Amino acid sequence: MTDRSPLAPTSLPALPEIAGVTRRVARARYKTWDRCDLTYVELSPGTTVAGVLTKSKCASPEVDWCRAALVLGRARALVVNAGNSNAFTGDRGRHAVEGLAARVAQHLGCQPSDVFVASTGVIGVPLPLDKAEAGLTAAFTAEPCDWVTAAETIMTTDTFAKVAVTRAVIGDRTVELVGIIKGSGMIMPDMATMLGFIFTDAAVDAAWMQSALSAANTKSFSCITVDSDTSTSDTVLAFATGAAGNATISDDDEPGADAFRSALDDLCLQLAHLVVRDGEGASKFIRIDVTGAESDESAHRIGMSIANSPLVKTAIAGEDANWGRVVMAIGKAGEPAERDKVAIRFGETQVARDGLEVEGYDEAPVTAHLKGAEIDIGVDLGLGDGRATVWTCDLTHGYISINADYRS
Amino acid sequence: MTDRSPLAPTSLPALPEIAGVTRRVARARYKTWDRCDLTYVELSPGTTVAGVLTKSKCASPEVDWCRAALVLGRARALVVNAGNSNAFTGDRGRHAVEGLAARVAQHLGCQPSDVFVASTGVIGVPLPLDKAEAGLTAAFTAEPCDWVTAAETIMTTDTFAKVAVTRAVIGDRTVELVGIIKGSGMIMPDMATMLGFIFTDAAVDAAWMQSALSAANTKSFSCITVDSDTSTSDTVLAFATGAAGNATISDDDEPGADAFRSALDDLCLQLAHLVVRDGEGASKFIRIDVTGAESDESAHRIGMSIANSPLVKTAIAGEDANWGRVVMAIGKAGEPAERDKVAIRFGETQVARDGLEVEGYDEAPVTAHLKGAEIDIGVDLGLGDGRATVWTCDLTHGYISINADYRS
Repeated sequence: MTDRSPLAPTSLPALPEIAGVTRRVARARYKTWDRCDLTYVELSPGTTVAGVLTKSKCASPEVDWCRAALVLGRARALVVNAGNSNAFTGDRGRHAVEGLAARVAQHLGCQPSDVFVASTGVIGVPLPLDKAEAGLTAAFTAEPCDWVTAAETIMTTDTFAKVAVTRAVIGDRTVELVGIIKGSGMIMPDMATMLGFIFTDAAVDAAWMQSALSAANTKSFSCITVDSDTSTSDTVLAFATGAAGNATISDDDEPGADAFRSALDDLCLQLAHLVVRDGEGASKFIRIDVTGAESDESAHRIGMSIANSPLVKTAIAGEDANWGRVVMAIGKAGEPAERDKVAIRFGETQVARDGLEVEGYDEAPVTAHLKGAEIDIGVDLGLGDGRATVWTCDLTHGYISINADYRS
Repeated sequence: MTDRSPLAPTSLPALPEIAGVTRRVARARYKTWDRCDLTYVELSPGTTVAGVLTKSKCASPEVDWCRAALVLGRARALVVNAGNSNAFTGDRGRHAVEGLAARVAQHLGCQPSDVFVASTGVIGVPLPLDKAEAGLTAAFTAEPCDWVTAAETIMTTDTFAKVAVTRAVIGDRTVELVGIIKGSGMIMPDMATMLGFIFTDAAVDAAWMQSALSAANTKSFSCITVDSDTSTSDTVLAFATGAAGNATISDDDEPGADAFRSALDDLCLQLAHLVVRDGEGASKFIRIDVTGAESDESAHRIGMSIANSPLVKTAIAGEDANWGRVVMAIGKAGEPAERDKVAIRFGETQVARDGLEVEGYDEAPVTAHLKGAEIDIGVDLGLGDGRATVWTCDLTHGYISINADYRS
């Protein structure tokens, strides 16, 4: 196990219980380890659900299953397996997911489509249904556990448990939103991140929550990258039990809709940042602001080109003020850019403007900024009003060590 | 200086002289080193030229200069600076290129537009014209040197000199083609590779050679990647002195046109492979064949998605038969793919077919294949006739070491 990321938060937020959500964990022993690796979350009847899933063309059967179940918009349980992604396993993989859902449905007396399943780990090995069923049976009778234990149980190469909390006022009720997430490598979510789960006691219509979650996703999970690799299993699900008793939100015009959207945006961004902070081998948390692009989409693509550049990421790992690599990454993005209008900032220091180094450039404050753990890069293209912010981490020997030896 | 790449060729080909091409090198001392870093190649009157240049939106002034000069199709000299790319340096950079070209034009009594200039090294520092001019002056009177010395002089982080040779029969003449190239990091050429120069004694019309070079480029330089980063300075130029005395080729229907195209294709592929073999930190040379895609372009993009995946490249570095990461890279490519039709081969061993691991899969031969230095991956999508081959290297601690500390 790798050491805890140096970018991990130093403290955990206080996490409220969400009425209608009960967590239990068990040992399915998907790998030869002695840790809990199966998470079972029971949700009270009436819970609505929304989700965003990987756009991978080789998505796991769990993703296929969730995509179909999301259409119905209701949930009674969530099962998360850690240590085996079950992706690219053909019929056996599909049968494992169906078997798990059926077992939970039988236990709860609900429909299999009310059961959401997510798995993470090695690709290409079918999930062993016998181990999964034994794990489930143990989980059904286990004591309920706290949020952090659940967040730990969904981890794979993660080095710390990732939890976040926000709240929103809807009419005369305050609703709570709690999220847990895992992810560290194979992170450039195309719709969602590795595995993230959000729970709220708000009463919200599933279709409306889907629109709110999709919007939050574009500003959070879709704006992070660790290594440019998009998982076969990326999944973010949001469950709303309705226990807070607010008037159900089903439209943007209704009271509390803005507050809930804003709380959901905040929670998703917190969770997305936690994934970057646990990026494999990460020693620096990097924020990249792109302004002056032709459109927001163009700004986003330029930001991601910088965030995914191995040369930019290694320069930052080496605390090297080699801003020319940012120029390179802008140039290769394939987006509108005019070299002689480009400006670049590191921290508070403008390093380049109008297509060349600023007059009297002093590297000292840039080098000082790079010695910190929170790196801030600004790029202005001087073309229009398009803007975007993306987040990534640096590329270090740690990433190579973790990934040249992950399966064994 | 890093050790010679373990993938370097063990011997050099015999390199013929090309009549009309004279090479000289000198110390411009662009960095604090004691090595030749300026290459000056004189070309006989009547030499034609073709070129492919980076598509970067932040291209160097050298690239701008060559793009303009290529329109005229004739060349008398080439100057290559190593240690400073002169990219993103505004007017000062432009003046340096113009100054160099003017100095050579004065020396040879030709037009400045007959002088081609290329530079490689750190981005953002203007090329010091005084050093360049002093270097040029020294080069004008230096003894002519051999091909390998020129190939060494254009190197930066390269660990070995890269040269290649082919020939073609045109009518009753045999023409020779010699190429030199440099490049090791910041390699995913979008039109060309870092800096490559091809010389032939064939008589060929510039416009026709341009079409032949562009075609060769799409099958060679555009099919390699080291780190997915596209340089601001990528340049491949082909010079034809005409000294072989063949009837000038200016059309595909003319005798020898096919032979010349084929020789040029071969030379470009040899040069492209040499760049991959000197990929920063590389320990494995990886060939990826994609078949059964909807189109050749789609196959190419899927191949590049695999070749650029840090997780695929680290798995190969770790000699880990983790073929699930190839599945991931296919899935994220954004190209047509149907999971349950995908087949994957490592070396001679079929590992997956119809969307899952083959029956009775034995990992032993795959592991044995991965222990070698030449890795061969095949992907069949089962959709159509589209095919492509791309080449890359693995991602190792060496890449991090080189790039977290390149500028210093």
